[in-house]
Amino acid sequence: MRPGIRKLVVLNPRAYKGGSGHTTFYLLIPKDIAEALDIKPDDTFILNMEQKDGDIVLSYKRVKELKI
Amino acid sequence: MRPGIRKLVVLNPRAYKGGSGHTTFYLLIPKDIAEALDIKPDDTFILNMEQKDGDIVLSYKRVKELKI
Repeated sequence: MRPGIRKLVVLNPRAYKGGSGHTTFYLLIPKDIAEALDIKPDDTFILNMEQKDGDIVLSYKRVKELKI
Repeated sequence: MRPGIRKLVVLNPRAYKGGSGHTTFYLLIPKDIAEALDIKPDDTFILNMEQKDGDIVLSYKRVKELKI
Protein backbone atom coordinates (compact mmCIF):
# COMPACT_ATOMS: atom_id res chain seq x y z
CA MET A 1 0.00 0.00 0.00
CA ARG A 2 1.45 3.31 -1.02
CA PRO A 3 1.65 5.96 1.70
CA GLY A 4 -0.84 8.77 1.29
CA ILE A 5 -3.29 6.55 -0.56
CA ARG A 6 -6.28 5.56 1.51
CA LYS A 7 -8.58 2.90 0.33
CA LEU A 8 -12.02 2.22 1.74
CA VAL A 9 -12.09 -1.44 2.69
CA VAL A 10 -15.61 -2.83 3.03
CA LEU A 11 -16.13 -6.47 3.89
CA ASN A 12 -18.50 -9.09 5.25
CA PRO A 13 -17.40 -11.50 7.95
CA ARG A 14 -16.42 -14.95 6.81
CA ALA A 15 -18.67 -17.59 8.36
CA TYR A 16 -17.60 -21.17 9.00
CA LYS A 17 -20.28 -23.63 10.02
CA GLY A 18 -19.07 -26.13 12.58
CA GLY A 19 -20.34 -29.66 12.88
CA SER A 20 -22.20 -28.80 16.07
CA GLY A 21 -24.39 -26.33 14.18
CA HIS A 22 -22.83 -23.12 15.36
CA THR A 23 -21.01 -20.62 13.22
CA THR A 24 -17.56 -19.16 13.69
CA PHE A 25 -16.92 -15.72 12.24
CA TYR A 26 -13.66 -14.32 10.95
CA LEU A 27 -12.64 -10.94 9.56
CA LEU A 28 -10.28 -10.87 6.63
CA ILE A 29 -7.02 -8.96 6.75
CA PRO A 30 -6.82 -7.85 3.10
CA LYS A 31 -3.74 -9.03 1.25
CA ASP A 32 -2.22 -5.59 0.66
CA ILE A 33 -2.65 -4.64 4.33
CA ALA A 34 -1.25 -7.97 5.55
CA GLU A 35 1.77 -7.43 3.31
CA ALA A 36 2.25 -3.78 4.25
CA LEU A 37 2.17 -4.69 7.95
CA ASP A 38 4.12 -7.92 7.48
CA ILE A 39 1.52 -9.93 9.39
CA LYS A 40 2.80 -13.28 10.66
CA PRO A 41 0.85 -16.26 12.04
CA ASP A 42 2.43 -15.78 15.46
CA ASP A 43 1.62 -12.07 15.75
CA THR A 44 -0.31 -11.25 18.91
CA PHE A 45 -3.47 -9.16 18.74
CA ILE A 46 -5.57 -7.76 21.57
CA LEU A 47 -9.23 -7.33 20.74
CA ASN A 48 -11.24 -4.43 22.05
CA MET A 49 -14.89 -3.76 21.48
CA GLU A 50 -15.98 -0.14 21.31
CA GLN A 51 -18.94 1.91 20.23
CA LYS A 52 -18.49 4.85 17.89
CA ASP A 53 -21.42 6.99 16.72
CA GLY A 54 -23.79 4.15 17.58
CA ASP A 55 -21.80 1.63 15.54
CA ILE A 56 -19.85 -1.28 16.97
CA VAL A 57 -16.10 -1.29 16.35
CA LEU A 58 -13.93 -4.36 16.78
CA SER A 59 -10.35 -3.14 17.23
CA TYR A 60 -7.49 -5.61 16.94
CA LYS A 61 -4.25 -4.13 18.21
CA ARG A 62 -1.04 -5.87 17.28
CA VAL A 63 1.24 -5.88 20.28
CA LYS A 64 4.91 -6.67 20.26
CA GLU A 65 4.93 -7.91 23.79
CA LEU A 66 2.03 -8.67 26.03
CA LYS A 67 2.16 -6.53 29.16
CA ILE A 68 -0.63 -7.24 31.63
CA MET B 1 -21.11 -11.40 27.58
CA ARG B 2 -22.37 -9.84 30.76
CA PRO B 3 -22.28 -6.05 30.91
CA GLY B 4 -19.64 -4.66 33.21
CA ILE B 5 -17.42 -7.68 32.73
CA ARG B 6 -14.41 -7.04 30.54
CA LYS B 7 -12.33 -9.83 29.28
CA LEU B 8 -8.91 -9.49 27.73
CA VAL B 9 -9.07 -11.23 24.37
CA VAL B 10 -5.66 -12.15 22.99
CA LEU B 11 -5.37 -13.98 19.69
CA ASN B 12 -3.16 -14.89 16.77
CA PRO B 13 -4.33 -14.41 13.20
CA ARG B 14 -5.60 -17.48 11.44
CA ALA B 15 -3.49 -18.24 8.36
CA TYR B 16 -4.78 -20.09 5.30
CA LYS B 17 -2.24 -21.16 2.72
CA GLY B 18 -3.55 -20.86 -0.80
CA GLY B 19 -2.50 -23.09 -3.68
CA SER B 20 -0.51 -20.27 -5.23
CA GLY B 21 1.80 -20.15 -2.20
CA HIS B 22 0.52 -17.02 -0.57
CA THR B 23 -1.21 -16.84 2.78
CA THR B 24 -4.54 -15.27 3.66
CA PHE B 25 -4.97 -13.99 7.21
CA TYR B 26 -8.16 -13.79 9.22
CA LEU B 27 -8.98 -12.49 12.69
CA LEU B 28 -11.42 -14.44 14.78
CA ILE B 29 -14.54 -12.86 16.23
CA PRO B 30 -14.77 -14.82 19.49
CA LYS B 31 -17.99 -16.75 19.96
CA ASP B 32 -19.27 -14.78 22.94
CA ILE B 33 -18.65 -11.46 21.18
CA ALA B 34 -20.26 -12.67 17.95
CA GLU B 35 -23.30 -13.75 19.93
CA ALA B 36 -23.50 -10.58 22.04
CA LEU B 37 -23.35 -8.46 18.87
CA ASP B 38 -25.54 -10.83 16.86
CA ILE B 39 -23.03 -10.93 14.01
CA LYS B 40 -24.52 -12.12 10.71
CA PRO B 41 -22.74 -13.22 7.52
CA ASP B 42 -24.17 -10.24 5.63
CA ASP B 43 -23.08 -7.62 8.17
CA THR B 44 -21.00 -4.87 6.61
CA PHE B 45 -17.69 -3.82 8.17
CA ILE B 46 -15.42 -0.95 7.23
CA LEU B 47 -11.77 -1.55 8.00
CA ASN B 48 -9.52 1.22 9.20
CA MET B 49 -5.85 0.99 9.95
CA GLU B 50 -4.51 3.19 12.73
CA GLN B 51 -1.44 3.54 14.87
CA LYS B 52 -1.76 3.77 18.65
CA ASP B 53 1.27 4.13 20.92
CA GLY B 54 3.45 2.72 18.17
CA ASP B 55 1.24 -0.34 17.71
CA ILE B 56 -0.87 -1.07 14.67
CA VAL B 57 -4.62 -1.26 15.19
CA LEU B 58 -7.00 -2.83 12.70
CA SER B 59 -10.46 -1.43 13.41
CA TYR B 60 -13.49 -3.09 11.87
CA LYS B 61 -16.58 -0.93 12.23
CA ARG B 62 -19.93 -2.56 11.66
CA VAL B 63 -22.11 -0.16 9.72
CA LYS B 64 -25.82 -0.45 9.26
CA GLU B 65 -25.82 1.36 5.98
CA LEU B 66 -22.91 2.31 3.84
CA LYS B 67 -22.81 6.06 3.31
CA ILE B 68 -20.04 7.23 1.03
